[in-house]
Amino acid sequence: MTYTPPTTEQLFVLNHIARIDAMAQHDRFAAATPDMVEAIVAGIGEFAAEVYAPLNRIGDTVNPKWDNGKVTMPPGFKDAYKQFVEAGWGSIDGPGEYGGQDLPFTLATVVIEALGSANMGFSLCSILTPGAIHALMAYGTEEQRQTWLPKLVTGEWNGTMNLTEPAAGSDVGALRSTAEKVTEGPNAGLYKIKGQKIFITFGEHDLTDNIVHLVLARTPGAPEGTRGISLFLVPKYRLDEGGIPTISNGVHCASIEHKLGIHGSPTAVMVYGEDEDCLGEIVGDEMGGMRAMFVMMNNARLMIGCQGIQIGERATQQAQRFAAERVQSALAGSPDRTPVTIDQHPDVRRMLWRMRAQTEAARALTYYAAAQIDFGKLGDEAAAMRADILIPLVKAHATDIGCEVASLGIQVHGGMGFIEETGAAQHYRDARIAPIYEGTNGIQAADLVGRKLGMAGGDLVRGLIDDIAHGAAEFPELQQLVDACRAVTDWMVGANTADRLAGSYPYLTMHATATCGWLMAIQHKAARAALGEGQGDRAFLEAKIVSTRFYLEQIVPAATGLAASARAGDAALEALPAIA
Amino acid sequence: MTYTPPTTEQLFVLNHIARIDAMAQHDRFAAATPDMVEAIVAGIGEFAAEVYAPLNRIGDTVNPKWDNGKVTMPPGFKDAYKQFVEAGWGSIDGPGEYGGQDLPFTLATVVIEALGSANMGFSLCSILTPGAIHALMAYGTEEQRQTWLPKLVTGEWNGTMNLTEPAAGSDVGALRSTAEKVTEGPNAGLYKIKGQKIFITFGEHDLTDNIVHLVLARTPGAPEGTRGISLFLVPKYRLDEGGIPTISNGVHCASIEHKLGIHGSPTAVMVYGEDEDCLGEIVGDEMGGMRAMFVMMNNARLMIGCQGIQIGERATQQAQRFAAERVQSALAGSPDRTPVTIDQHPDVRRMLWRMRAQTEAARALTYYAAAQIDFGKLGDEAAAMRADILIPLVKAHATDIGCEVASLGIQVHGGMGFIEETGAAQHYRDARIAPIYEGTNGIQAADLVGRKLGMAGGDLVRGLIDDIAHGAAEFPELQQLVDACRAVTDWMVGANTADRLAGSYPYLTMHATATCGWLMAIQHKAARAALGEGQGDRAFLEAKIVSTRFYLEQIVPAATGLAASARAGDAALEALPAIA
Repeated sequence: MTYTPPTTEQLFVLNHIARIDAMAQHDRFAAATPDMVEAIVAGIGEFAAEVYAPLNRIGDTVNPKWDNGKVTMPPGFKDAYKQFVEAGWGSIDGPGEYGGQDLPFTLATVVIEALGSANMGFSLCSILTPGAIHALMAYGTEEQRQTWLPKLVTGEWNGTMNLTEPAAGSDVGALRSTAEKVTEGPNAGLYKIKGQKIFITFGEHDLTDNIVHLVLARTPGAPEGTRGISLFLVPKYRLDEGGIPTISNGVHCASIEHKLGIHGSPTAVMVYGEDEDCLGEIVGDEMGGMRAMFVMMNNARLMIGCQGIQIGERATQQAQRFAAERVQSALAGSPDRTPVTIDQHPDVRRMLWRMRAQTEAARALTYYAAAQIDFGKLGDEAAAMRADILIPLVKAHATDIGCEVASLGIQVHGGMGFIEETGAAQHYRDARIAPIYEGTNGIQAADLVGRKLGMAGGDLVRGLIDDIAHGAAEFPELQQLVDACRAVTDWMVGANTADRLAGSYPYLTMHATATCGWLMAIQHKAARAALGEGQGDRAFLEAKIVSTRFYLEQIVPAATGLAASARAGDAALEALPAIA
Repeated sequence: MTYTPPTTEQLFVLNHIARIDAMAQHDRFAAATPDMVEAIVAGIGEFAAEVYAPLNRIGDTVNPKWDNGKVTMPPGFKDAYKQFVEAGWGSIDGPGEYGGQDLPFTLATVVIEALGSANMGFSLCSILTPGAIHALMAYGTEEQRQTWLPKLVTGEWNGTMNLTEPAAGSDVGALRSTAEKVTEGPNAGLYKIKGQKIFITFGEHDLTDNIVHLVLARTPGAPEGTRGISLFLVPKYRLDEGGIPTISNGVHCASIEHKLGIHGSPTAVMVYGEDEDCLGEIVGDEMGGMRAMFVMMNNARLMIGCQGIQIGERATQQAQRFAAERVQSALAGSPDRTPVTIDQHPDVRRMLWRMRAQTEAARALTYYAAAQIDFGKLGDEAAAMRADILIPLVKAHATDIGCEVASLGIQVHGGMGFIEETGAAQHYRDARIAPIYEGTNGIQAADLVGRKLGMAGGDLVRGLIDDIAHGAAEFPELQQLVDACRAVTDWMVGANTADRLAGSYPYLTMHATATCGWLMAIQHKAARAALGEGQGDRAFLEAKIVSTRFYLEQIVPAATGLAASARAGDAALEALPAIA
């Protein structure tokens, strides 16, 4: 149940897909030299394997404990988190003027990948803090930045996202929490926050001495729906004159959830302003909350997509190790009938290569999207728009991959996979949250065929299709898929909203698979070239050729089979008859 | 979290797919009149909903308890099982001369479906007993039958299957348990059994006053592999002169497993003959164990396939109820922006129809296979051979469907799906065992492309393909899939073993989907006809038309996309590089 950092693979994708070398040509990311990139990738891998991985099963079995509003993390978590902060792993892409390292977001993605492969539940503590940083950078005042950013950047304090309420899940606009401006006295200008929020990841815990909640609420008289929402920064403890979080602030954790997986991550019900005043600072303008939230959400969605890689990598390693040791049955037709390790049986090898190929595809897609965000920051508008299209693909498809790979991981183990002590089952349970939170995968599909497909009359999506088609020249299965994507896209652009939505999920899967196919084709060619030149790690490159070929020849054609479903239209989905 | 028996649907499939009316034309099954069939289907549905369903969550959360070799079931289980026995639900297809009702196996399948939908873990107690009955009917002596069958037929005693050992899972032939014949004294003719068996479903519990273990072991000097295996009947308690199980027999339960799901089913480590002699009776001849075991396994595999229906039905009902109540967001383009129940949103409806269509497909496939077993008993050789081909399809594909539908069930619930108290997560955990036990789905795929495809040089498989093609006339997507199945079959017949195995899993999925498509097409036409004639339940028939069309137009074409993977061959699967 150990985790071996896939450093060679990560560097290969950073170089050939994310083009991290091109980022380092710009002043802003000049620090991302090849040596620095390698040091970060190897360093976080080692840290994750040594410090976070040993706590994975403890988090699953011991669980955080709620008692009278306080949550105590399992043994070892507090010390491990302290090491994470002290080593500076939280500050990779943080802004330099507030203590960050000003490195590309893509590298922060690699950091989170490593932590989450080692311990997905625990890593969630560090996933939402960057969103809080980005929101403050984009919409906070200079005073707010100076007050809150330094500790958020290091991770000494963590950030949370408070959107969901019992009646407001996918429909954020339905939320009812309120914020009323204080007009006089020492707190004038602050807002009194009242309401209940649910599903708040790391909303309460004992890893840090403060927690910075970003809370969506309505000001009095604000219009219904998302237009009337504002964003507030609500600390667990307000700061005293010395800047120390000592002042109680009327926010408490009413309970934590009993979940299928990610037991190491406390999921809190948070209550604001119930018995005591709860004071928050507005971030940005009144009723500008959704705009600010979108800044947080784009990053968070990519980070959740990254969880597909995390679980995929961990489950694949575990299954491969098991299969390399478990002896069972001779190969069919073996003359001496000597039993062999099961990784020699063709169908087990098929499962293992599928796990590997899917995980590599999720990684390529995620790093590619992260890189487009970075290139966008460097002024490349086309990259920024490409990132917008990629976000729903990453969030939905990479998380679907995580679930599929974790399930295959159980299957490779046979009966042992169903026994909790083996550990394969934990990955399967942990993986299942990722298609749900930060906007269900159905919401991602709606975003793709709604807002994203609508950008420039479909030309942004078509631009991606053109790029894929260009890269598909030597790969007939990918050509077929990209032709199908083009045809469905044309149909989608002309279809009504209900018809588009009815086919949105299979359309997203086709599109994501085509994009992954393209990125796998690029890697296939790069691996062949490197082998031809005698460069690089030979075993790695040979495996990369097999995994990319597997993806292109076996996974890509299956996605072409989704075209009928993508354009079936809403008429195929009548109302369901009621169950008695 | 209640279970509503899908009685109308079950009867429709029994009539149009299983052709239960045709069975009743034969003397042997003359008791299966339409009234009797309806009474059984409705009766077991009611029983399952009222007696087994309320214990589902208790089984999951309280769990059976092991203490010093004894296992105590959760509260309520013992009384519910007593009701099951007293109502005669265990004896549906049992032989009349030993207290059974001599009804078709197909009806016993419906009984198990209902129990398992209500409470999958609990229902496992009744899944393996019929296998023990069949083995005794086929290979037991008259004395053995008279001794053991009456109590097994009623379910007063349950049967278990003891194959697996720590080093002998999929490779049954590797087992090491021994059986040595007693040659003198009062026990002459019995065998002393020694060894450890793992993963024994309901190997120990307090529901019955005896447990009849069927145990595979080796006699001294027996050859290696499956050829040297014999089958033994080993009671938990031997019978005294009055036929009462009072004599301790040297078998004990060393522990029970901590599993991902089916917590209501104790999975035992059984130890035979450790401190005390353990005596067993041989069933059939020495070294005839595997042949006898296959009799048990075919039925058990169909029963496990049935678990795909069980979880599919339960998860679908739960998701549909949730979606009909949960209000979230207005429909896109709605002028007054009134939030609606989520079952009105197209992608949620897509998920719900998919769940329903897949579950109906699994049911049709399973009932069809069960019916072929029954027709085989009535002397129809072609039906018996058809059943042989169908068993791996049922076991593997229906269980895959169970997992997929349970996962969609979580997704429909959104965040609530990940909270254990909601109950959707239990189905997801429970479902995951079914692709593993009774021969992993990979083993089923190997059986299909090995033994089953080899029967009559592929003509049995081609016979099924011909039947599907014949039924596909009005369904172009099904025609395409069946053409692809035929092409891959031709390739498979000419390919070497490793190449066949490399593509076995996608081949099985294609074949099973084509078979389901055929059975859904038959139902589509039957529903249209009934509606045209104004017969039957209108709402049910209209929904059947939608679900069958969904299956044929959206699920069938995706399976065609697996052809490339099915014929990719072993060369695509090189050895994996080792992980450091």
